[in-house]
Amino acid sequence: MKQLFSSLHQYYEEMISIRRYLHENPELSFHEVHTPAFIANYHRKLGLEVRERVGGRGVVATIRGSRPGKTVALRADFDALAIQEENDLPYKSKVDGVMHACGHDGHTATLLVLAKVLTEMRDQLQGNVVLIHQFAEEVAPGGAKPMIDDGCLEGVDIIFGTHLWAPTPLGDILVRNGAIMAAADRFEITIQGKGGHGAEPHHSVDAIVIASQFVTQLQNIVSRRLDPLKSAVISVGHFEAINPFNVIADKVELKGTVRTFDKEVQGLIEKEIELLLKSVCEGSHATYEYSFKRGYPPVVNHKKATQFIADIACNVPEVKNVIECPPFMIGEDFSYYLERVPGTFFITGAKNPNWEVAYPHHHARFNFDERAMLVAAKTLGMATLNYLNTSK
Amino acid sequence: MKQLFSSLHQYYEEMISIRRYLHENPELSFHEVHTPAFIANYHRKLGLEVRERVGGRGVVATIRGSRPGKTVALRADFDALAIQEENDLPYKSKVDGVMHACGHDGHTATLLVLAKVLTEMRDQLQGNVVLIHQFAEEVAPGGAKPMIDDGCLEGVDIIFGTHLWAPTPLGDILVRNGAIMAAADRFEITIQGKGGHGAEPHHSVDAIVIASQFVTQLQNIVSRRLDPLKSAVISVGHFEAINPFNVIADKVELKGTVRTFDKEVQGLIEKEIELLLKSVCEGSHATYEYSFKRGYPPVVNHKKATQFIADIACNVPEVKNVIECPPFMIGEDFSYYLERVPGTFFITGAKNPNWEVAYPHHHARFNFDERAMLVAAKTLGMATLNYLNTSK
Amino acid sequence: MKQLFSSLHQYYEEMISIRRYLHENPELSFHEVHTPAFIANYHRKLGLEVRERVGGRGVVATIRGSRPGKTVALRADFDALAIQEENDLPYKSKVDGVMHACGHDGHTATLLVLAKVLTEMRDQLQGNVVLIHQFAEEVAPGGAKPMIDDGCLEGVDIIFGTHLWAPTPLGDILVRNGAIMAAADRFEITIQGKGGHGAEPHHSVDAIVIASQFVTQLQNIVSRRLDPLKSAVISVGHFEAINPFNVIADKVELKGTVRTFDKEVQGLIEKEIELLLKSVCEGSHATYEYSFKRGYPPVVNHKKATQFIADIACNVPEVKNVIECPPFMIGEDFSYYLERVPGTFFITGAKNPNWEVAYPHHHARFNFDERAMLVAAKTLGMATLNYLNTSK
Amino acid sequence: MKQLFSSLHQYYEEMISIRRYLHENPELSFHEVHTPAFIANYHRKLGLEVRERVGGRGVVATIRGSRPGKTVALRADFDALAIQEENDLPYKSKVDGVMHACGHDGHTATLLVLAKVLTEMRDQLQGNVVLIHQFAEEVAPGGAKPMIDDGCLEGVDIIFGTHLWAPTPLGDILVRNGAIMAAADRFEITIQGKGGHGAEPHHSVDAIVIASQFVTQLQNIVSRRLDPLKSAVISVGHFEAINPFNVIADKVELKGTVRTFDKEVQGLIEKEIELLLKSVCEGSHATYEYSFKRGYPPVVNHKKATQFIADIACNVPEVKNVIECPPFMIGEDFSYYLERVPGTFFITGAKNPNWEVAYPHHHARFNFDERAMLVAAKTLGMATLNYLNTSK
Repeated sequence: MKQLFSSLHQYYEEMISIRRYLHENPELSFHEVHTPAFIANYHRKLGLEVRERVGGRGVVATIRGSRPGKTVALRADFDALAIQEENDLPYKSKVDGVMHACGHDGHTATLLVLAKVLTEMRDQLQGNVVLIHQFAEEVAPGGAKPMIDDGCLEGVDIIFGTHLWAPTPLGDILVRNGAIMAAADRFEITIQGKGGHGAEPHHSVDAIVIASQFVTQLQNIVSRRLDPLKSAVISVGHFEAINPFNVIADKVELKGTVRTFDKEVQGLIEKEIELLLKSVCEGSHATYEYSFKRGYPPVVNHKKATQFIADIACNVPEVKNVIECPPFMIGEDFSYYLERVPGTFFITGAKNPNWEVAYPHHHARFNFDERAMLVAAKTLGMATLNYLNTSK
Repeated sequence: MKQLFSSLHQYYEEMISIRRYLHENPELSFHEVHTPAFIANYHRKLGLEVRERVGGRGVVATIRGSRPGKTVALRADFDALAIQEENDLPYKSKVDGVMHACGHDGHTATLLVLAKVLTEMRDQLQGNVVLIHQFAEEVAPGGAKPMIDDGCLEGVDIIFGTHLWAPTPLGDILVRNGAIMAAADRFEITIQGKGGHGAEPHHSVDAIVIASQFVTQLQNIVSRRLDPLKSAVISVGHFEAINPFNVIADKVELKGTVRTFDKEVQGLIEKEIELLLKSVCEGSHATYEYSFKRGYPPVVNHKKATQFIADIACNVPEVKNVIECPPFMIGEDFSYYLERVPGTFFITGAKNPNWEVAYPHHHARFNFDERAMLVAAKTLGMATLNYLNTSK
Repeated sequence: MKQLFSSLHQYYEEMISIRRYLHENPELSFHEVHTPAFIANYHRKLGLEVRERVGGRGVVATIRGSRPGKTVALRADFDALAIQEENDLPYKSKVDGVMHACGHDGHTATLLVLAKVLTEMRDQLQGNVVLIHQFAEEVAPGGAKPMIDDGCLEGVDIIFGTHLWAPTPLGDILVRNGAIMAAADRFEITIQGKGGHGAEPHHSVDAIVIASQFVTQLQNIVSRRLDPLKSAVISVGHFEAINPFNVIADKVELKGTVRTFDKEVQGLIEKEIELLLKSVCEGSHATYEYSFKRGYPPVVNHKKATQFIADIACNVPEVKNVIECPPFMIGEDFSYYLERVPGTFFITGAKNPNWEVAYPHHHARFNFDERAMLVAAKTLGMATLNYLNTSK
Repeated sequence: MKQLFSSLHQYYEEMISIRRYLHENPELSFHEVHTPAFIANYHRKLGLEVRERVGGRGVVATIRGSRPGKTVALRADFDALAIQEENDLPYKSKVDGVMHACGHDGHTATLLVLAKVLTEMRDQLQGNVVLIHQFAEEVAPGGAKPMIDDGCLEGVDIIFGTHLWAPTPLGDILVRNGAIMAAADRFEITIQGKGGHGAEPHHSVDAIVIASQFVTQLQNIVSRRLDPLKSAVISVGHFEAINPFNVIADKVELKGTVRTFDKEVQGLIEKEIELLLKSVCEGSHATYEYSFKRGYPPVVNHKKATQFIADIACNVPEVKNVIECPPFMIGEDFSYYLERVPGTFFITGAKNPNWEVAYPHHHARFNFDERAMLVAAKTLGMATLNYLNTSK
């Protein structure tokens, strides 16, 4: 581990400069062009096998160890968001309305430099390392699925990934066996009543009253239909019936989100929403349209891999705490990798101890403590070496 | 009556041409300039005393009978609506986006020609006739109130008014003792919760859920708080919470209308809405803003005057049916006149028997059968003569 | 009229003593034995034709006038209620748990003495008087229907009836054209969910939550489905789910009442309740049973007969006010008579002016001012004489 | 361990006969007389120090090892339930309406025989064993608290307890770090409206409508006010408004239960229920009474002790699976011991593999596979020996 750690320290400045270069040049999900080219070029310079346009815009590079063995995959995503950066930084985004506001620039820089170090340690490697640079994590259906379909997991025995996390203090690593990230789905509903004069309810079907009942009863799915030990959220964020004050609304449009950690619960909610909607409308002479768009499935970590990372992290000098965290209610398409191969996804704390406030991810003033990249690189690197060199 | 009827027939063509002239030249409520000038000019040509700018833009003319007696007031409103006419008529509105879509052109033409006839019969008149040409009936606070404040009812013993009504067949006169038109009020509500991520209800106060409960419970005011024998309507026509699907709404804006026929019920509803709103918000950690804007009071006809008009109408040859109608859920500022002096407001059927559909008032294709003006003129004229010449 | 009035005064003491005798000896609806025998006996003593057991337990007597003419029917009901009297009166009920708490004793005494007086005036009568003594007014399906089926209205041209009314001051007569008494229906509902442990909602179907939603949404029928100008009440009076605190209820039983004045509204409500119930249950995995039991139809007075009674009442010396009243929300099977023949049902005020409180009908301390019987007798008697002697 | 296991096998018949004797002679919570006497007598015969009437009706015996050391407490509860047994067994309850329907007879038999064996092994014991025989576990406030107050945990270093569990297969041991049993609280609510005639909602305050709204909105506490990652249940099991169908209910009584695993959540729910109740009542002119009776706190296992028991259980030959279970939504007053000293509470599977159905606890046909007692005794005995003999 000595060489791993010392090399990472040696290239830490490079890591930062890569991250800042990427930060200045963000690209939106499904529109990444220069970023994957930059990544492929970096790996090619290291002398690695590189496959481009994997599943669309992904890049996969492979480090082949000096001796045969298992194969570890490491994944970093590289897309940015449609947010106008409000930070005042020397390396502020140069692209109007686009920003690395989720730390994927850091993920990429971490993985590139780690690849360089591991390539230099190739003679000590028993097995291979697959470097998966994924496009389009932010926008469903995401880049993971097409990259898998395009073979990025072929021969892979285990996969590791991490997310730099600004609200979590630098030095903390969060792990969780089982579901660590939720399934994040979206639904859209139109309730069609019959408009009319505000003074004539009996000639109308009041879509606002009906939709209000639907929203009210929707609460029962979480409170009464689900196993209380299984977490789920159903939120209606959008309720639209824009009319003059003196009419009866003919139509209401609702939009909302569902978060779950379990496919069965996800499926149950999808069905119960429609059952309820149907019944509320039928009881009130209205009709409806309903669409439920599944986002990513939950990220379900594997037990052994999670325990393995937790043990590794305890031995990274910069890691102060390895904490079993509650699950996060957000979605991640790392789920698709874990549906195919064992592995785990963990959180690397990235909050600078001097910051009073850490702006949340997807905020126009988001940033992270760059030292977190070193923590992530050490953890992922040590996990890779340990896994390969102790597996039989 | 012979002379009244024959003169009205004689000037019927003039009545039509006045109506069509006004129809081509509509003016919005509170913006009437040419219409009152036209009216005043017409009366001046008849040699009548004319007062302009009464209460703002109203016109009042007086016919003094040859002998002293009581004073009858007749009222016609003359404002138009912000509607783009879609009729294809030779006398279609020449003003973009403004239309006489409620028949006030007909009211005015009726009253002008009736004034001409009554002026010619001045020697048979025992008492006076006050011709009230009202501006701004369509938009609260309306023209009636300022015209009354400006003295238009001074010395008046009784007032009559009518509305030409396209959905009611030509030849029908609708009367009603007591409330014939509703109080039409408006309320606006803001429910202020606390926005947040759709996956974190416990850090938010979900304004959509709260507003939905409010709308649901609002139904109880009509169903449980009111005397079931007293009619009232509460409708929420506007429910606005425009957000991305995956947030929790911080705020909802509601707008609605209340219709009542009774000041006590009106006051009760105004108070109960706020009581309910307050409690729903307090029970859910939200706050609110509430405004209740009273429109016109109900038009409450006087018993004797109504019976009087019903009896008169039975003797108008063109009237086939005099019907006691249920109250209308719409507002009219004729209410203010009836709060001061006895009188009645009645409906003159104006649906052409050959029309399959009569477009409703305020519709871009609204029109009425012009013969209804003759019916209205005869009824009002006969009522005036009878009242004056039989009163002591 | 002189003779009518003076004879009624002459026999007023007898009227009171009959009423008090009946008050002491009340009999429950459908269990009347002595009361109809007493009535029949009284009429037989007057020398009238008497038919007993009409439609079950009714009594019908006929006064034949000296000259042929029309036939007037007068109706009085004679059943009592299952109430334990709490009045401290010399003529308090002698029957435990049974009481004339609605004034039917007064109705009967009035009609008996009026019959005596009219019999004595037989030589002045042009036509006949049918005296309908009805059993079982208090309990649906009531006595009116079987009595009609058994011919009590044969040959009848018009029918009059009145109710002595304790909340209305002595000296007032209330009349109303159209519906004066409501249709009073009853519904019973069972919502069947699936019971379970209070901690396991997901293995249960919570009947209390479902029934609560049903009750909440039920309010919309009155507030949104009905014409606001048509009165109706839907009340759930009984909600039963008796269980230990820590279970989930498998079943809820609801009972309630519906009041309407219009067959169409009645039918609409019956259907809308089931539509709503069905949808709420289907949306929540529950099932239901529903029964809607129609009570009496509304009492719909005929226009001419009502005007006739109003005019008559104005000429009864003891009558101070003849008032057009709003409809009453209670049921009466006088409705069946008015579905067959013209007529009217009116209210005779019976509140003693010295009473601070008039206990309501069906109260254990109910009573009425006996002078109201005289008012009722005069009004009914004068109406009979006038109708018969002026009809051709 | 050899001696422990072989002695337990040797006395297994005695264990069964004790259990069956207790099963035939159940005693209700807080009414135990013969059971504690029987227990005390058994321990006295073993020559142990015995304290009776501990905290009321508890019994505490102590085994002092031959060498000084730590002190382990083992707890078994001995009360029965107010249930009429419906099993047809040779050892069926002889007491009408009282039954050991939760397995406490087995807990007691297990602990008595284990005490006998450990007493025989006293020379190998380094430290002491405190045998806590607890009364009144089934009925809050329970026996644990007064026994602790009376000193039963004095000097105790760790405590273990188990529940024989009929729904879990024989051979399974369920463990859980953190909360394994819920806080089970009870609430009672009276909503006071104003009764009235079913036809006069405006003169009444309809308690059924108000309570229905309360129940409907109550769902929001779980769905919107709580952290979705924290489990909780709120169930209303009792809704009582027994009235004739044609009235408006003056009053509703509600009873329900709350289950939580976290004191903060428990406190939040207690407060939110009242806030909601208050607001619903205030918004509808009603008043309320509210009582929230806290049951037992959650049973929160300690991490080390739980891991310790899990490891021990893996070495019990009859144990096939040691499973980390989700928490149970039921209450147990073992919580009080764990608030004072480290320890863990685990589940011992007791479902006979040949049974198709295992009747649930508290069912009139409940039973368990008696071999589970042997599993429990071995696990508790081995844990005791290991803990004492390896602690320093």
